[in-house]
Amino acid sequence: MARRKKLYEGKAKILYEGPEPGTLVQYFKDDATAFNAQKKDVIEGKGVLNNRLSEFFMTGLTAIGVPNHFIKRLNMREQLIRQVEIVPLEVIVRNFAAGSMAKRLGLEEGTALPRPIVEFSYKDDALGDPLVPEEYIIAFGWASQQDLDDIVALALRVNDFMAGVMHGVGIKLIDFKIEIGRVWDGDFMRLIVADEISPDSCRLWDIETGRKLDKDVFRQDLGSLSDAYTEVAKRLGVLPTNVTHATKPTLIN
Amino acid sequence: MARRKKLYEGKAKILYEGPEPGTLVQYFKDDATAFNAQKKDVIEGKGVLNNRLSEFFMTGLTAIGVPNHFIKRLNMREQLIRQVEIVPLEVIVRNFAAGSMAKRLGLEEGTALPRPIVEFSYKDDALGDPLVPEEYIIAFGWASQQDLDDIVALALRVNDFMAGVMHGVGIKLIDFKIEIGRVWDGDFMRLIVADEISPDSCRLWDIETGRKLDKDVFRQDLGSLSDAYTEVAKRLGVLPTNVTHATKPTLIN
Repeated sequence: MARRKKLYEGKAKILYEGPEPGTLVQYFKDDATAFNAQKKDVIEGKGVLNNRLSEFFMTGLTAIGVPNHFIKRLNMREQLIRQVEIVPLEVIVRNFAAGSMAKRLGLEEGTALPRPIVEFSYKDDALGDPLVPEEYIIAFGWASQQDLDDIVALALRVNDFMAGVMHGVGIKLIDFKIEIGRVWDGDFMRLIVADEISPDSCRLWDIETGRKLDKDVFRQDLGSLSDAYTEVAKRLGVLPTNVTHATKPTLIN
Repeated sequence: MARRKKLYEGKAKILYEGPEPGTLVQYFKDDATAFNAQKKDVIEGKGVLNNRLSEFFMTGLTAIGVPNHFIKRLNMREQLIRQVEIVPLEVIVRNFAAGSMAKRLGLEEGTALPRPIVEFSYKDDALGDPLVPEEYIIAFGWASQQDLDDIVALALRVNDFMAGVMHGVGIKLIDFKIEIGRVWDGDFMRLIVADEISPDSCRLWDIETGRKLDKDVFRQDLGSLSDAYTEVAKRLGVLPTNVTHATKPTLIN
């Protein structure tokens, strides 16, 4: 695909103009960042894995009628997506305490929550994506109450589906983050799942061993991030067929 | 476990008195029946596989907060469950046309439906479990409107989860059937998933080949039912560890 106009570059992805109005090309970089980009590295092959994994999860969501931005994968690092107006929230669904929630509430990582909990962070790097109550979101007009109700319903469906995907391959879905976008069909606005779903945006623990298979491997220096993501892709059968050895993810570049 | 009083014997399972009030022991038989028991056979090892698979699915549902009857597996063929008052409905969720719906509407098997469709059959062997509109259910008092709304919500959560489980291992969830039971906590009635979830009660097609991995293999004489169920169990990693060969399910008896 001829290189198109760059519209936005984030920490892990770049968005280019798409071939048709209302579409974008989403490019997955190998860059890994954590703690609001205070920690950085380049993990060879990560972009390729996340491109495939996000395709895999979004395709599954489409099949059960959870609307999302994915149209098709274009190549190893790029996918065609619908252009959306991003709701400036990180929508986080938690099944077990971990990360900032474990810290904030003094809970041990892995503590089962009484039920799945949906929480929101305001997307603002300068502020460090702060946790916000729904009341803030409505008061500042980032989303309406009706939008929030719809977003919670979408997020819980994604949680049920993703928990199922992971349960099927011996992985516990601890939590995940999605972003939501608005699209218009004429005057009718719909909310759809956008951004990506990948081990960058989920916490995934092996059910038997508790081994972490997500970005915490990078955040906490627990070993090779490539190996962890490759393990997830291997279990789900979504590795490119020329990859035969889990410890050589660079082969798939 | 010492043999307890038999309370009910169905086509594929037997219910015995449980060790505690409010519990039952559910025994999985090897009997396969189809077309309202006009076609019958004994499939060695089927009960063992379904006992494990139902445990696997119900445990996953419990983990995401979908209430169900499963307490624990007792041995190769038995599991401890909560005693419920069964709602006399088969609750069917369809993602793709198949079986009676394909026939009734003249649709090709495998046609994607516009969205998941929940339908109800009245559980009555003498009548052949006829499809019933919600209006009948409420009018005859089998369930209230509120119950039905709750049942639909439960069924759709099970669908999202099971679609995820199957998506993760290269299987398409065409449709499935669950049953719902009532339990009481004091005066407070709750509806929970009961009966079983297994390849006896789901339609499962391999995503790549379209190969059927469910009871249709038996209904339609498509080969070995054991092999099909073993394939599902193998992909989900729930085979007993002493089983190494998919074509020898009798080993696990």
